[in-house]
Amino acid sequence: MGKKLTSRAENYSKWYNELVVEADLAENSAVRGCMVIKPYGYAIWEKMQAELDRMFKETGHQNAYFPLFVPKSLFEAEEKNAEGFAKECAVVTHYRLQNDPDNPGKLRVDPKAKLEEELVVRPTSEAIIWSTFKGWIQSYRDLPLLINQWANVVRWEMRTRLFLRTAEFLWQEGHTAHETKKQAITEAELMNNVYATFVENFMAIPVIQGLKTESERFAGADKTYCIEALMQDGKALQAGTSHFLGQNFAKAFDVKYTSKEGKQDYVWATSWGVSTRLMGALIMTHSDDKGLVLPPNLAPNQVVIVPIYKSEDQLETITEVVNDIIKDLRARNISVKYDNRDTYRPGAKFAQHELQGVPLRIAIGSRDLENRTVELARRDTLTKEVIELDTLGDKVENLMTEIQGTLFKKALDYRNSHITEVETFEEFKTVLEEKGGFISAHWDGSAETEDKIKEITKATIRCMPLENSSGSGKCVFTGRPSERRVLFAKAY
Amino acid sequence: MGKKLTSRAENYSKWYNELVVEADLAENSAVRGCMVIKPYGYAIWEKMQAELDRMFKETGHQNAYFPLFVPKSLFEAEEKNAEGFAKECAVVTHYRLQNDPDNPGKLRVDPKAKLEEELVVRPTSEAIIWSTFKGWIQSYRDLPLLINQWANVVRWEMRTRLFLRTAEFLWQEGHTAHETKKQAITEAELMNNVYATFVENFMAIPVIQGLKTESERFAGADKTYCIEALMQDGKALQAGTSHFLGQNFAKAFDVKYTSKEGKQDYVWATSWGVSTRLMGALIMTHSDDKGLVLPPNLAPNQVVIVPIYKSEDQLETITEVVNDIIKDLRARNISVKYDNRDTYRPGAKFAQHELQGVPLRIAIGSRDLENRTVELARRDTLTKEVIELDTLGDKVENLMTEIQGTLFKKALDYRNSHITEVETFEEFKTVLEEKGGFISAHWDGSAETEDKIKEITKATIRCMPLENSSGSGKCVFTGRPSERRVLFAKAY
Repeated sequence: MGKKLTSRAENYSKWYNELVVEADLAENSAVRGCMVIKPYGYAIWEKMQAELDRMFKETGHQNAYFPLFVPKSLFEAEEKNAEGFAKECAVVTHYRLQNDPDNPGKLRVDPKAKLEEELVVRPTSEAIIWSTFKGWIQSYRDLPLLINQWANVVRWEMRTRLFLRTAEFLWQEGHTAHETKKQAITEAELMNNVYATFVENFMAIPVIQGLKTESERFAGADKTYCIEALMQDGKALQAGTSHFLGQNFAKAFDVKYTSKEGKQDYVWATSWGVSTRLMGALIMTHSDDKGLVLPPNLAPNQVVIVPIYKSEDQLETITEVVNDIIKDLRARNISVKYDNRDTYRPGAKFAQHELQGVPLRIAIGSRDLENRTVELARRDTLTKEVIELDTLGDKVENLMTEIQGTLFKKALDYRNSHITEVETFEEFKTVLEEKGGFISAHWDGSAETEDKIKEITKATIRCMPLENSSGSGKCVFTGRPSERRVLFAKAY
Repeated sequence: MGKKLTSRAENYSKWYNELVVEADLAENSAVRGCMVIKPYGYAIWEKMQAELDRMFKETGHQNAYFPLFVPKSLFEAEEKNAEGFAKECAVVTHYRLQNDPDNPGKLRVDPKAKLEEELVVRPTSEAIIWSTFKGWIQSYRDLPLLINQWANVVRWEMRTRLFLRTAEFLWQEGHTAHETKKQAITEAELMNNVYATFVENFMAIPVIQGLKTESERFAGADKTYCIEALMQDGKALQAGTSHFLGQNFAKAFDVKYTSKEGKQDYVWATSWGVSTRLMGALIMTHSDDKGLVLPPNLAPNQVVIVPIYKSEDQLETITEVVNDIIKDLRARNISVKYDNRDTYRPGAKFAQHELQGVPLRIAIGSRDLENRTVELARRDTLTKEVIELDTLGDKVENLMTEIQGTLFKKALDYRNSHITEVETFEEFKTVLEEKGGFISAHWDGSAETEDKIKEITKATIRCMPLENSSGSGKCVFTGRPSERRVLFAKAY
């Protein structure tokens, strides 16, 4: 604690890495690419989980749990999906260790304990879940089947970064089955909407809803909906995806249902997920050079109270007043922490809470007691004011809503001012390099053009926005006819 | 649904297996030894999690998340622990699949993607967590460190049974570090107490708190506290354990702290866990030949309401009354499900809810409307009565407490009448075979005697009860002096 962060201007990437560690959110572990999520970071994740879980249940979904492992033969059943994930699979090949005869006290894999069939550690659970759904679905009465799972998954990424890209991460994955194509598409759209609502209202991060191009789609999906956010360095971040899977998995795992009319058909599927990656989006959207900035909805402690005292007697008198404040705030459903540790000085406590993004800090000393005031400091604006004790409760309650709104507004203004329409490829490159953000440009719809632009600029098509009134035009790269503008950006 | 269960008397084990599947709690998966926890079973587990999590936080613990994988070199650092788990470890050796040139469309492990160091899928997390704690603990100010993790773990068991013993299971594992031996022992006892309180008050399962003998201890622990429950077939089930780990892991991972006085020493540790195995204990303690019986605290739906109607008009009138009932019950914090599915008949619904253990069923038909009554059926006693609508809310609210108490009392009576003191080994064997349950007997304290008794009878020492007033005596097997009685039983 106390070490000054690299500034965003100096080195954004370094700033992020330092912030995650210094604010006690997460750290690298002894396992390549796997992180440890520290208590403070996990507490924020728990708040996200609780709200998402509530939203999933409200929309009729039920939680269940499926195996961590996928037998190789199941994994390869849906070919596109298998192909998409094969290159980054952790594979269990043995089920026992034994003493190493050459190294006393050490263990080695027991060569006699080789599995007949290798097990893939789930990179995503479509295969194992659809092999299970086969047993759950017989008739229209079993549909829609609306399942969600909270789980860990493993994708052996070569370049990892805390929260943004880790070999193991935590997520939820929804898997649903429906009678008709239309119902499945409606579900995929509904859940993309749930994600957008959650990320905007709860995390205060504005997002653009859109569809992925074919080359950016989830392996095995017919359509991939997404929500795209913009970070402070002008790079985009995919914050969640919702897939319409067609009948691909139903066919791969032979999942049919009998309709009310007695007709047999394959069911239609969706899957959708958000992960601990959202923590990265949260950090990079709101935080500043002094550390984390948390929207009140996600702050483990919304308010921290620091007593300023010289003697035990003073602390005691202050604590009496603080207890009343705490009681008042808790009655208003505001979480408060009283930081009365005697092992740290007020200055160190201020620095820590600033670094950790506690939305409001109340400091209270002996002079405050005399004047019946407290000092109130806002983390988002870094402003301080002296407040009369009698008005504190109302003030704090109002500020919770205000700060949540301010953070969203600030992020929205930044995002909106970083969507630039361009007409030529020169303009495209200049804006990308000099300004960053989303570039709204016409595209001829071909994967070839998409690839070439990516090769030259490193920008990808983040999405084809659902809200679209751009009309037709000419492709920014080839000049061929284009039906609509799409959003390009460099991305995390 | 509708298939009659094998009775407990006929085949207890078969009854259990059928019940778990028929009541929609869990099923076997395509992965050997791994289960799928179905939505209804998972909803019960979520209730357990929520209550335990609340209790952990109330006692000062914080959640965090550590990697799924443990590098082999870390895994083997604490030798006893490594030795204890080596034989049942799933091991990741490769990180990529590739197209199988011999089998088009199939995949195989890419031989070039072999890991330099194998990764063990965590069977328990002491090793990875203590390698992390080393970075978190410098001084007394960092202690006590009170961490909990909700996670999946894998132990490659040869004989598996749904919930009771599965290759992958869900659990929580607490890991704490303390300044003194005494503080660590107090923590281990506290958490064993938390488990006992939870299992008795929340799950309505009476338990005996005790210490394990050396041979039954957790690998790497100096003391293992446990809670032991008794199932309806007279077999014991270990429902939770809490370990005092001494300085074993601190030494293996070199975790020292500087005291207030500036002295360096290794920290003292505990770990403690309960798992989805508790689902097995729940099922086997309360259920009957008709299916699951759930204590109200754990029932996803505490009350189900089934309308009995012939016409749509009737259903509409009934639904109006039902909506008032639901409103009343929800205001009392009682969870209610209105089963108005038109795809099933009342008889099928009754059977399903009985099988799934819904504590109270309310049936309401046209005649009830006229009389302002409903039919109320209790799952635990299988009794029915007609209740006046005006008194229903109070009645149901009281029954929630009453049923919870009745189930505990019934299980306690059964358990207490199945603790038998024996003086001779003949008696020991007779009671074990004819009556089952816990056998309270003197034991000379040697592992040899313990082993021999196990070999001959298959009974193990479940625990040395913490509450103990048995006094000294002679070992039931060797006749040697014994300091105290211990509890033997056959166990799950």
